[in-house]
Amino acid sequence: MGKAWSGRLPEGTDRRVEQFTESISFDHRLYREDIEGSRAHASMLAHVGIITSEEADQLDKTLVTIRDEIEKGDFTYDISLEDIHMHIERRLIELVGDTGRKLHTARSRNDQVATDLKLWVRKHLDLLDSRLEAVQRAFVTTGFRYKDVIVPAYTHLQRAQPVLVAHALLAYVEKLQRDRDRARDCRARLNTLPLGAAALAGTTLPIDRQFVAEALGFDGVAANSIDVSSDRDFAIETVFVLTMVAEHLSSWAEEWIIWATTEFDVLTLPDAFCTGSSIMPHKKNPDILELIRGKSARVIGDLQSLLVLVKALPLAYNRDLQEDKPPLFDAMETVLACLELAEPLIAETTLNRESIAERLPEGFLDATTLMEQLIKVGVPMRSAHEAVGGLVREAIERQCTLAELDLELFEALAPGKGNDVKSSLGVERALAAFQSEGSTAPERVEKQLRIWGKRLGLELS
Amino acid sequence: MGKAWSGRLPEGTDRRVEQFTESISFDHRLYREDIEGSRAHASMLAHVGIITSEEADQLDKTLVTIRDEIEKGDFTYDISLEDIHMHIERRLIELVGDTGRKLHTARSRNDQVATDLKLWVRKHLDLLDSRLEAVQRAFVTTGFRYKDVIVPAYTHLQRAQPVLVAHALLAYVEKLQRDRDRARDCRARLNTLPLGAAALAGTTLPIDRQFVAEALGFDGVAANSIDVSSDRDFAIETVFVLTMVAEHLSSWAEEWIIWATTEFDVLTLPDAFCTGSSIMPHKKNPDILELIRGKSARVIGDLQSLLVLVKALPLAYNRDLQEDKPPLFDAMETVLACLELAEPLIAETTLNRESIAERLPEGFLDATTLMEQLIKVGVPMRSAHEAVGGLVREAIERQCTLAELDLELFEALAPGKGNDVKSSLGVERALAAFQSEGSTAPERVEKQLRIWGKRLGLELS
Amino acid sequence: MGKAWSGRLPEGTDRRVEQFTESISFDHRLYREDIEGSRAHASMLAHVGIITSEEADQLDKTLVTIRDEIEKGDFTYDISLEDIHMHIERRLIELVGDTGRKLHTARSRNDQVATDLKLWVRKHLDLLDSRLEAVQRAFVTTGFRYKDVIVPAYTHLQRAQPVLVAHALLAYVEKLQRDRDRARDCRARLNTLPLGAAALAGTTLPIDRQFVAEALGFDGVAANSIDVSSDRDFAIETVFVLTMVAEHLSSWAEEWIIWATTEFDVLTLPDAFCTGSSIMPHKKNPDILELIRGKSARVIGDLQSLLVLVKALPLAYNRDLQEDKPPLFDAMETVLACLELAEPLIAETTLNRESIAERLPEGFLDATTLMEQLIKVGVPMRSAHEAVGGLVREAIERQCTLAELDLELFEALAPGKGNDVKSSLGVERALAAFQSEGSTAPERVEKQLRIWGKRLGLELS
Amino acid sequence: MGKAWSGRLPEGTDRRVEQFTESISFDHRLYREDIEGSRAHASMLAHVGIITSEEADQLDKTLVTIRDEIEKGDFTYDISLEDIHMHIERRLIELVGDTGRKLHTARSRNDQVATDLKLWVRKHLDLLDSRLEAVQRAFVTTGFRYKDVIVPAYTHLQRAQPVLVAHALLAYVEKLQRDRDRARDCRARLNTLPLGAAALAGTTLPIDRQFVAEALGFDGVAANSIDVSSDRDFAIETVFVLTMVAEHLSSWAEEWIIWATTEFDVLTLPDAFCTGSSIMPHKKNPDILELIRGKSARVIGDLQSLLVLVKALPLAYNRDLQEDKPPLFDAMETVLACLELAEPLIAETTLNRESIAERLPEGFLDATTLMEQLIKVGVPMRSAHEAVGGLVREAIERQCTLAELDLELFEALAPGKGNDVKSSLGVERALAAFQSEGSTAPERVEKQLRIWGKRLGLELS
Repeated sequence: MGKAWSGRLPEGTDRRVEQFTESISFDHRLYREDIEGSRAHASMLAHVGIITSEEADQLDKTLVTIRDEIEKGDFTYDISLEDIHMHIERRLIELVGDTGRKLHTARSRNDQVATDLKLWVRKHLDLLDSRLEAVQRAFVTTGFRYKDVIVPAYTHLQRAQPVLVAHALLAYVEKLQRDRDRARDCRARLNTLPLGAAALAGTTLPIDRQFVAEALGFDGVAANSIDVSSDRDFAIETVFVLTMVAEHLSSWAEEWIIWATTEFDVLTLPDAFCTGSSIMPHKKNPDILELIRGKSARVIGDLQSLLVLVKALPLAYNRDLQEDKPPLFDAMETVLACLELAEPLIAETTLNRESIAERLPEGFLDATTLMEQLIKVGVPMRSAHEAVGGLVREAIERQCTLAELDLELFEALAPGKGNDVKSSLGVERALAAFQSEGSTAPERVEKQLRIWGKRLGLELS
Repeated sequence: MGKAWSGRLPEGTDRRVEQFTESISFDHRLYREDIEGSRAHASMLAHVGIITSEEADQLDKTLVTIRDEIEKGDFTYDISLEDIHMHIERRLIELVGDTGRKLHTARSRNDQVATDLKLWVRKHLDLLDSRLEAVQRAFVTTGFRYKDVIVPAYTHLQRAQPVLVAHALLAYVEKLQRDRDRARDCRARLNTLPLGAAALAGTTLPIDRQFVAEALGFDGVAANSIDVSSDRDFAIETVFVLTMVAEHLSSWAEEWIIWATTEFDVLTLPDAFCTGSSIMPHKKNPDILELIRGKSARVIGDLQSLLVLVKALPLAYNRDLQEDKPPLFDAMETVLACLELAEPLIAETTLNRESIAERLPEGFLDATTLMEQLIKVGVPMRSAHEAVGGLVREAIERQCTLAELDLELFEALAPGKGNDVKSSLGVERALAAFQSEGSTAPERVEKQLRIWGKRLGLELS
Repeated sequence: MGKAWSGRLPEGTDRRVEQFTESISFDHRLYREDIEGSRAHASMLAHVGIITSEEADQLDKTLVTIRDEIEKGDFTYDISLEDIHMHIERRLIELVGDTGRKLHTARSRNDQVATDLKLWVRKHLDLLDSRLEAVQRAFVTTGFRYKDVIVPAYTHLQRAQPVLVAHALLAYVEKLQRDRDRARDCRARLNTLPLGAAALAGTTLPIDRQFVAEALGFDGVAANSIDVSSDRDFAIETVFVLTMVAEHLSSWAEEWIIWATTEFDVLTLPDAFCTGSSIMPHKKNPDILELIRGKSARVIGDLQSLLVLVKALPLAYNRDLQEDKPPLFDAMETVLACLELAEPLIAETTLNRESIAERLPEGFLDATTLMEQLIKVGVPMRSAHEAVGGLVREAIERQCTLAELDLELFEALAPGKGNDVKSSLGVERALAAFQSEGSTAPERVEKQLRIWGKRLGLELS
Repeated sequence: MGKAWSGRLPEGTDRRVEQFTESISFDHRLYREDIEGSRAHASMLAHVGIITSEEADQLDKTLVTIRDEIEKGDFTYDISLEDIHMHIERRLIELVGDTGRKLHTARSRNDQVATDLKLWVRKHLDLLDSRLEAVQRAFVTTGFRYKDVIVPAYTHLQRAQPVLVAHALLAYVEKLQRDRDRARDCRARLNTLPLGAAALAGTTLPIDRQFVAEALGFDGVAANSIDVSSDRDFAIETVFVLTMVAEHLSSWAEEWIIWATTEFDVLTLPDAFCTGSSIMPHKKNPDILELIRGKSARVIGDLQSLLVLVKALPLAYNRDLQEDKPPLFDAMETVLACLELAEPLIAETTLNRESIAERLPEGFLDATTLMEQLIKVGVPMRSAHEAVGGLVREAIERQCTLAELDLELFEALAPGKGNDVKSSLGVERALAAFQSEGSTAPERVEKQLRIWGKRLGLELS
C-alpha cells in the first residue's frame, strides 16, 4: 500500500524525505488513543448508517487485535508509513481489506491527530495531578514529622526571620496546588472533540459528532472546523502548566542544594538519591536535585519551541504543527519523572536538628519581632526600624546577639518598658510571638497542616 | 529622609547603585494601586486598634491628596527614593509627620508590592477582556456583513476547500474566546490578598487580613506568608495569557498580510491603517498587521524573561523579582495596543468580492466533496481518494476544472451514477453540500453567527 | 563492578535514580570521541611515566577493540552504568583488569566529557560547513540556470521592485556565508584542550597536557581548570550558530511556500519533495519546506534550554550540565537534516517562467525607477516621490500601468522631458537601469554569480 | 510636511496608528549615527555629481546644527513624524528647503536604518569591550591582593578541592575574555556598509558606495542589496554576545551571593553596594548581585524576542523589523550597566580570611590529593578511589579529619608507605602538591596573574 495520497503524487517520495517527515519515532506513543478514537469513529459511522454494523464490529475487533499486537511487540514499524495513524490503518487494511478502507471516511488526519493528542494530554494531566498530590503529601508529612523544628527563613539568601520548617514546606504545597488548579483548568478547557472537523471545513457526510464526543468522554464538540484544524492551544497551555511545575521544582531544588551544603548543614539527603565523583573519593553530590533544577531549562525550552512554532502560522493546518509533539511529550515526561523522584527524596530526607539549632542565634532572626515590640509600646514604625537597625550594628561590633546587649539600650528606646521589650528577644520567643493569619505562628501552622492533611487524605499523628 | 534601612547601613548608597536599583521609572504605574492598598491598610490598622481612627482618617485624606498631586503632575520623582512606594510614603511623612511613619506598620514592601501588582493585573485583565470582546465583535460583524462570500480555505497555504468567509472569521472568535477564558481563570486564581504576609513570616501584631481582603475586593487571603513573599505565578500566568493572545493575533496578521498581496487580492486594508515607503512611491504597506505580527515576538520574549527570572530562585523574596515588572507591563501594554488597533482595522477592511469570485474555480476546491460523493455511492474511502487524485492529475494536464472533465471518467468510477457524482462539482455546490456540526455548511455558519451575535450583544441584521 | 564512587556511597542507588540520571541513551553518540580521547590520554600517561608503555599499548589496542565492538553492535548497554564513559571503562576493565583501572588516572569525568564533547562539536561543525556550502552551490547553480528571469521583489510582502531571480537567490548565499563564518569563529574559539583540568583544580600528577592537545588536534590547552570544569560556552555558541542557520532557512522556506501557492505561482516544487493529504485528494503540499520552517522553532527552543540551563549556576561543575547534550545534539542533527533536504529541493525546483512573466506588469514595479528618472532630470527627491505617488493613484483608478498613462502627465512633472522620463517605464527597462554596486543590475549580478561560482568550485556555463 | 508617502496615501493616518507605529520613543538614540551617515551620504552625492558641492556643504552644516540642537535639548519631537530619521529630515527641510529634499536621493529608510544601527552597535561593542576589560582588571587585582588565600572550590556546591582564590577569580577572567573575543568577531563581521542598497534592489543613480564606506569606517560594502534589506544578523549576534556576558555575570553573582551568606561567610560586600529591608531592620542584602543575576533573564528574553521576530519572515524588509531595536538597546544598556557596577563591587569587596581559614579543614578537601598519593605509590586509580572513599566514611563516623585517622589505616592501603601517603594530608599541603598546567598550583597561578596583569596593563606588586 502506498501513501495516503498516491493518486495525486504517484511517483513516490524521496527516501530522505521519508526520513525527514516521519513522526512514527515519537508519535507511536499515541497508539492507544488512536485506536480508542478509531473505535468510537467506526461505531459512529455504523450508528449513522455510513457503514454497516457488521463492518463496525469487524473494525472494532480488529482494532483491538492491533492494539494487542502493539503491546506484545508483534507490530512492525516502517518509516515509509510516516506516523502511527497510517501504521494502524495499513495493518487494518491488511487484516480486513476494503472494510478497513472505509474507516477513514469523514475524517482527516488533521482532526484524527488532534483527537488522539487531546486524549493523550487528558490522560497525562490526570497522572500529573496525582504525582503533584503525592509530592504535596510528602511535604506535609515531612512538615508534620518535624513540626517543632525552627529554621531561619531567608530573603536575599540572608537570614531573615525564624519560621517553623513546616511553614516553609507548606509554601511549596501552596505553589503545587496552584499548579494542580492550572492543570484542572487546562483539562476542562481542552475537553471538546475535534473529530468531525475533517480536513478543515467539516464534511458532507451525515456524521454524528455528539455520539463520538460522548463515547470518548468529551464534554462537547469543538464548534468551528477551521479552528480545530489550526488549534494547538491545548498543547501549549499544557506545556505552560508543566513549565510552572518545573519552575517550582527548580526553586525547591535550589533551596535544598544550598541546605545540603557543608556550610548550611540543614538537611541530609538519602544516600540512594545522591551520587559520587569519578575522581574525588569524598564527594556525596545532590545530583537528583541538580538534575531537577537543570531539567526546568528543558521544559522552558520546550515551551519556547511551541510558542515559536505557532507564531505567525496562517490558518489552518500547516505541516509545521507536526513539531508540536516532541516538545509536548518531552515536557510531560520530564516533569512526571522529576515528580516521581521528588516524592521519595522529600520523604526520606533527614533534617539536621542539632546543627540547625546550634546556628539559630546567628543572623539576628529576632530583630523584626523586636521592632514590632517597640511599635506595640508606641514607637512609630519607621523610628522603631531605625532604632533596631542601630542595635544590630552595635551587636555586630560587639560580636554578640541582641539579647546580650545592655538593658539600658532598650530603656533608652522605650523608657520604662525596656524590660518588656527586651523580653521578646531570642529566636524561640520571636517565633512564638507571631499571630497573623498565614504567618508562622505555631497554632496557625498546626492548623494548616491539619487542613492539608485532611485534603490530601493523610493521617497525621 | 534617608533610605528605609538607614539604621542598619548608615553610610548611604553609591549613586550608580541608586541608578541601577531604582524602579520608579517603571513602577510609577502602580501609584493608584499603592494608594488604594495603603488606604485599606490604614483603615484596618485603626479597626484593630494599632492606630487611632483619627490617625487613620488623616492618613486616608492625605493619601487621596497625594494621588491627586500625582494625577495633576505636581509630584516630584527622585531615583534616590527607589520606587513608587517610598515616594508615596516619604510624601506622606512630609505632610503628616509621625503618623505617616506608622503606616508601614505590620507590612513589608514585599507584601505591599505583591498586593499593588495583583490589583494592577486584575484591573488590566478586565481591560484585556473587554478589548478581546471588541475584536470578537469586529470579526462577527464583518463575517455577517459578508456572510454570502465564499473564499478558499487553505492547509499548507495550498487551496483546500471552499468555506464561507464568516466561517473563517469565526475561527478567530473561538480562539479569542479561549483567551478570554484563560484570562478569567487567571484572574480568579490570583485574587487572594498578599498583604499581611509582611516580610515573609507574618507579623506579631494583631492585624485583620480578612478586613483588608474585603476592602480591596479579594476573594480571600493568601494562606502562607512564605509563599506570598516568593510567589510570582500570577504575573507569569498573566503574561502567558497575553502570549496566547499575541500568538492568535500573529496568525491572523500573517493571514491578512498574505490576503492583502497583489497575488491573493482577497481584501483591501483601510488606507488609514497602512503606510507607504520613503523611497518607493507606489507602496501601500500593511504595517499595522506586520507590527502586530512582530510584536508577538516581544511578548514571547517577555514571557521568557519571567520564566528565566524565577528559575532556581530559593525562597523567599530575592531582589531579582524586581525585574518582574518591566516584562509584565510591556506585555500587557503591547497586547492591549494591538487589540486596540485590530478592532477598527478588521471593521474597516473591505473584501474584494469580485477578485475572490473570479479565482474560486482555481485549485480544485471541490475535489474533497467529489470524493465524499463517491463514498456516498459506495466506493470505499481510500479507493475514492485515489480515484479523485487521478482525476485531478488529468485535469491539471488538460488545464481544466474537474467539472470540465468528461462524464465517462466519472461513470468509470461509479457505474450508473456518474451523473450524480459529477453534479456535486463546482465550488458553490461543494459548499452547499456540507452538513456536519462545526462545518462551513451555510445554515451551521448562520447559526454560529447568531449565537455569537447574541453572546456579544450585537444586533445582526 | 559498581559505581565510580562505591567506596563513598556503598549502599547503591535507587533504580529510579539510575533511570533519571542516566545519559547513555543520548551520550552513546560520543563513543568515538571518548575512545579517541582515552587513547591520547593513555599514550600521554606512558609518555610521562605514570604507566608503562606496555600498559599503554594494551589500553590502546583494547580501546580499538571496544570501538569495533560498538560499531558492530556487539556492545551491551546498561543504564546502571550511567554514561558512555563508564560503559567503555567498565568494558576495558573486564578485558584487561588492573591496567584498565589505571586509565582514569589524573582525569575526571568533568574534563573527559568536555573533551569528548569538543571533539564531537568540532567534527560536526565541519560537517555543517560542508552542508552549508552545498546549499550555497544549489542557490548559485539555480540562479545561474535562470539568470535571465526577472521576478518581483517584495517588501512588506507587497510588490516592490523588479529583480533578477539570481539576485534574490544570492541574498541567501550571503546569509549562509555569514553562518559559515560564525561556525568557523566558533570552531577556532573552542579548540583548546580541557583534559588535564581533572575535577576542577588540576592534578598533583606530572601530566603533559600539551602532548594530549597535539595528539587530538587542539590548538592549545585551556588555561584555567575551574573555567574548564564550568565552561559550556562552546556548546551554547555552537547552538547559536545553528539557530542562525535555522532562522535563514525558515525565511527561505516561508518565501518559497508563498511562491508555491496557486496565487503566486512562481515555482513548482519537485513532487518527490512534497506530500499529499489523507482526505483531500487534490492536494500537493510543500511539507518539507513547512517542516524546515517549523524545525527552526525546535532549534530556537534548544538554544533557550541551554541559556536557561547555565543561568546562575555557581562554579564549577554542577550536574545540571549533563542536560547540555540533548539540546546540542538535537539542534545539530536537526539543522544538518534540514540542509541535507534543502540542497536537492533547491536544485530540483522549477521556476514558472510564463506565469511570472505574465504578472510582471502588476504592482507598479517600475515606479521607483520612474522617480529616480525624475531626480535625474532635476526634481528634488521628496518632490519626485510625491509626484510618482500621485501617478500611481491615477493608474489604480484607471486600472492601467504607469506606462499606459498619458504623456502629458509626465510632461507636467518634467517639462520638456516627459518623453525621456516616460521611456524609463516597463519592468524590463526598469531592471536594466540599475547600476549601483550590490544592486540587481544584470552585469553586477552576473559578476556576483561568477565570484561565488569560483569560490564554491562550480563550473557555470 | 506630511508623511514620506503622502503622494500615495493622501488621506493620512489614524492617530492610534501613529502611536502604534512610532519608533521615535526609542530610536532617538540613533540621532548621532543618523547625522553621521547623512553627512557621508551627502558628501558622496556631491562627489558623484548628483548634488552640487554647495548643496553638500549646506547639508553638512545644517546636519551639524541639528545635532547641536538635539544635544542642547532644543529639538522638538512629534510622534506623527514616526522616527528619528524623519525628524532630522523634516528639520533639514525646514532649514534649507529643496536642498533638504534631495538628501534622501538614492537611499531608503531601509538601508539608512541598517547603517545607523550598525554604527550604533559598532560603537557600543567598543564600549562593551572596555567595560569587560575593566571587570577583568578588577578580578585580577583582587586575585593578586589575596593571592595567598586558599578557598574551598566546589562542584555540585559541595566542597571539592582547595584552590587559591586567585585561581577561582581567574576563571572569570577567562570567561570574559571569550566574551571579548566574541564581541570582536561580531564587530568584524558586521562592518560592511548597507547604505546604497536603497529599498532592496539598489538604485539607478550613479552612487559610489566605496566612498561612503570609507567615510564611515566600514571595511567594505555589503554585496547584495536584498540581503541588506532583510539582514538583522548583526543585531542578533550582538545580543547573543551580550547574553553570554550576562550568563557569566549571573554565575558570578550567584556564587558571590552564596559566599556572602552568614553560613558561607567567605566575603563581605561593600555597604555602599548593598541595601536593607523596609521591615527587617537587621538586613544587609546583596541587591546589586541579585539584580545582576536577575537581569540576565531580561537579556535572554531580549535575545529570544529577536530570534522569534525574524523567524519565517520572507525577504526583504518587513515592518516587523522595527521591533529589533527595543531588545537590542535594552540588552546593550542592561549589560553595560551590570558591568559598570560589577567592577567597583569586585574591587571593594573584602575576603573574610579568618572565617575562611577556620573552615578549611571541613569537607575533606584533601581527599583527592590523598588518592593521587596512593596512585603515585602504585595503587591503580580505581582501587585508590575506592579506598579513600572508605577512609572518608570512617572519618565521618569518627567526626574527624582524614589526617586524624590512625596511621595503620594508611599502612593497610600502601604497605611500607603509610607515612608517605599520610603526610600529603592537610589542605595547605594538598594545595601545594598541585602541578599540572592550568591547575591551582601556586606557581602556575602566579604566572597566570602575571600574564593577565601584563595583558591588561596592570602593575601588580
